[in-house]
Amino acid sequence: MGAQIELEAIGTVCGGRAEVINDNWGGIEAWIELDRRLDETALSSLDQFSHAVIVFHFDQVDPATIEWGARHPRNNRDWPLVGIFAQRGKNRPNRVGVTTCRILGVEGRRLHVQGLDAVDGTPVIDIKPYMTGFEPRGDVAEPDWSKELMAGYW
Amino acid sequence: MGAQIELEAIGTVCGGRAEVINDNWGGIEAWIELDRRLDETALSSLDQFSHAVIVFHFDQVDPATIEWGARHPRNNRDWPLVGIFAQRGKNRPNRVGVTTCRILGVEGRRLHVQGLDAVDGTPVIDIKPYMTGFEPRGDVAEPDWSKELMAGYW
Repeated sequence: MGAQIELEAIGTVCGGRAEVINDNWGGIEAWIELDRRLDETALSSLDQFSHAVIVFHFDQVDPATIEWGARHPRNNRDWPLVGIFAQRGKNRPNRVGVTTCRILGVEGRRLHVQGLDAVDGTPVIDIKPYMTGFEPRGDVAEPDWSKELMAGYW
Repeated sequence: MGAQIELEAIGTVCGGRAEVINDNWGGIEAWIELDRRLDETALSSLDQFSHAVIVFHFDQVDPATIEWGARHPRNNRDWPLVGIFAQRGKNRPNRVGVTTCRILGVEGRRLHVQGLDAVDGTPVIDIKPYMTGFEPRGDVAEPDWSKELMAGYW
């Protein structure tokens, strides 16, 4: 068995969508409210960045539906059978999501964001600034299906 | 207190650096070996992507050194005092790292990568394909200090 890792949410997604829907996340606005054990200075100067990377927990995904091997993305047979780690679906081991979204503002212990694909109430594991220095080094390639899947996502 | 989130490593970083060093990660090669409870098909077709996003746990960071408010990045006073969520240092709540690295190949349940800034033995929480569809939407901005900090990182 793998090492146990015990985390505690540092905040919660508030507002935005209440229901899990696949597409059209681009215009959705929400707030991330920091947990009380954090100092509000934990968000200071984050608004000097245009974007943040949000690490969150898909807590509404039933653990019984987690895929441990391969499946068709979104269970759509028009796309190839690929490993769960070769796709970004939420029914994955550890149920962790990572998304870059636009920062609209910081107010005390609240971060206002646009384009975060996590529903109201989602536990947040981490917030990181989006730095261009962390972009991929070298040429980027991906299969056609991932472009098709993302076409209507934002 | 925030919601408790219990995870289990899906794999381990093998090889690469044994010591935690700040800079020059770009040329470092390592393997991620999947835990036995995962099917080896979990990595199938990942090699159709040039890059992967690795979510990992900085398990060597002493919890007593975690910053819950603001600090100078790398404790360097040449850079401004900013919130821990406005920087990417490892002494952060939940000690989670997220890095995009180059995929060199997949062999069974082993993923060969280059440019992963995690030391030998690091527990891996998730592996995701790098999809251009998840790049930031809209113009990207960041403060000068983050460009300076990243200048020698890879």
